[in-house]
Amino acid sequence: MSDKIRVGIVGYGNVGRGVETALRQNPDMELVAVFTRRAPETVAIKTETAKVVHMDHIESYKDAIDIVILCGGSATDLPVQGPEMARLFNTIDSFDTHARIPEYHTVVEEAAKAAGHTSVISVGWDPGLFSMIRMMSGAFLPMGEDYTFWGKGVSQGHSDAIRRVNGVKNGIQYTVPVEEAITQVRNAENPALSTRQKHTRECFVVAEEGANLSQIEKDIKEMPNYFSDYDTTVHFISEEELKANHNKMPHGGFVFRTGVTGDNEEHKQIIEFSLKLDSNPEFTAQVLVAYARAAVRMNKEGNTGAKTVFDVPLSYLSPKSSAELIKNLL
Amino acid sequence: MSDKIRVGIVGYGNVGRGVETALRQNPDMELVAVFTRRAPETVAIKTETAKVVHMDHIESYKDAIDIVILCGGSATDLPVQGPEMARLFNTIDSFDTHARIPEYHTVVEEAAKAAGHTSVISVGWDPGLFSMIRMMSGAFLPMGEDYTFWGKGVSQGHSDAIRRVNGVKNGIQYTVPVEEAITQVRNAENPALSTRQKHTRECFVVAEEGANLSQIEKDIKEMPNYFSDYDTTVHFISEEELKANHNKMPHGGFVFRTGVTGDNEEHKQIIEFSLKLDSNPEFTAQVLVAYARAAVRMNKEGNTGAKTVFDVPLSYLSPKSSAELIKNLL
Repeated sequence: MSDKIRVGIVGYGNVGRGVETALRQNPDMELVAVFTRRAPETVAIKTETAKVVHMDHIESYKDAIDIVILCGGSATDLPVQGPEMARLFNTIDSFDTHARIPEYHTVVEEAAKAAGHTSVISVGWDPGLFSMIRMMSGAFLPMGEDYTFWGKGVSQGHSDAIRRVNGVKNGIQYTVPVEEAITQVRNAENPALSTRQKHTRECFVVAEEGANLSQIEKDIKEMPNYFSDYDTTVHFISEEELKANHNKMPHGGFVFRTGVTGDNEEHKQIIEFSLKLDSNPEFTAQVLVAYARAAVRMNKEGNTGAKTVFDVPLSYLSPKSSAELIKNLL
Repeated sequence: MSDKIRVGIVGYGNVGRGVETALRQNPDMELVAVFTRRAPETVAIKTETAKVVHMDHIESYKDAIDIVILCGGSATDLPVQGPEMARLFNTIDSFDTHARIPEYHTVVEEAAKAAGHTSVISVGWDPGLFSMIRMMSGAFLPMGEDYTFWGKGVSQGHSDAIRRVNGVKNGIQYTVPVEEAITQVRNAENPALSTRQKHTRECFVVAEEGANLSQIEKDIKEMPNYFSDYDTTVHFISEEELKANHNKMPHGGFVFRTGVTGDNEEHKQIIEFSLKLDSNPEFTAQVLVAYARAAVRMNKEGNTGAKTVFDVPLSYLSPKSSAELIKNLL
């Protein structure tokens, strides 16, 4: 019997595939099965030793798996799957609808606690690493300001919104932080920044043949919630160009805390954290895998229920021993 | 009786004074006493409600204080004080002699464990925040490289070394990261960097009257361990200029992890963390105070012994409730 951490993946989209690849970088873990709602024989995975199993049969893996990583979406998959899976397994997910995290936490807590499982929710980079930096920076510098910038990167939500516009065949949207705003924050000028001053939106659109381009541009730029509060640029390109030049999912961003210390608050102290990611889903997957290791350890110690990145000691993320971490990384 | 966390400060140098000021930004904590080896009546503190007490009487504060923050130096103070104080109190310190941290951990662990206290050692920003970023980034990106740059900032050790040179009356040394090296790392070029390629050293020296300046410059630049492996610049200035323009203790630095993900390791992922500090000791003090809050909570939960920043769940650093953190910061 293997003493590796036995992992299941639920949902085999971009993040699910990223988790599979990430597991290869972590020799203390192994993929047991990918669970899918599709017909299993239509899903080709890369791990020869693992199976593809229909979701209907996941319960039979209860004793064969130490943790499942939920790779579904936050809109419809996770609100149902999160608590359901927490009844059966230790779980990790990347639930990222910020406003609904408290209620999601509550339902997962109930399910996980009752079953004696450990479920770390809302793992990834935002929510996730960015949240950790915001949280601890605020504790270190109580008198200060937070700034978060996203990008340059692809926003799935905004790309979907473009594709719903009349006459649009395909499209992608990049969120771009305003360089000048970042410079002001980095110089501790503590600027008050409007939505428009923080980010611009850049759209690459493939129009249907004969579509009214200026109408498409107008419809995108004036779309409430998504674009109307931003300076938006629309570029029309061909389907070939879209496929050739916009097939990656880069992302990233910046978190700042600018605070003051000293008897007269005369000293500025700036904390900056940033990510520059060639592949957003693959990076998210790498983070999910490290938290899977932590969740299994917390569960072995009897620390059950719903957890967040705020609850997990950092050493639990690493396969290295405490002595090794102290010696080489402290 | 107050339900605030009752804090003692041991040692009233730059960091000790910084802790006193930091406590004012944390209304859930209060300073009870500053402990000193000097004659207490010669030490003027800023907190009217707190006392100055000679170290000889610290044991009588055993029940009046929840935690002491040790603000002495790593060379001679902490190796003795760390375990001694851990027998009497929960403690926080910023022991920063990297090579000796494992043995220091062992002696503090024995003392704290036997007494039922919780002692978080080597807290600050390096060791401390930089260690946390290195550790978790390595867990997220196992296939990758770490880079740490320090500065621009004052190195006490190198400033002391300058002042020991024949003919030098006073002096200060700044460690400066090489901008070009940082740019290479930020662009994920994974450069192999020698000591000389990572940092330069800039010295501002006040010479004694009639001293041989070119000899001083030579002695500094050729000093083994401290300067000989670096490109060093020596500026001769007046005592007045030193006092006017070099009386601050700025510091900071950068930690990078550059990793790869994907089936063919084709995607570069870059994590960057940086600090830009007007006052190094005050920022260190702010971090010590947040960890003091965490140590008291861990102790209440029965989690005793020597701890590091790797062992502390981030939520313990904050005075805010878990629900509040989830709602506003996740």
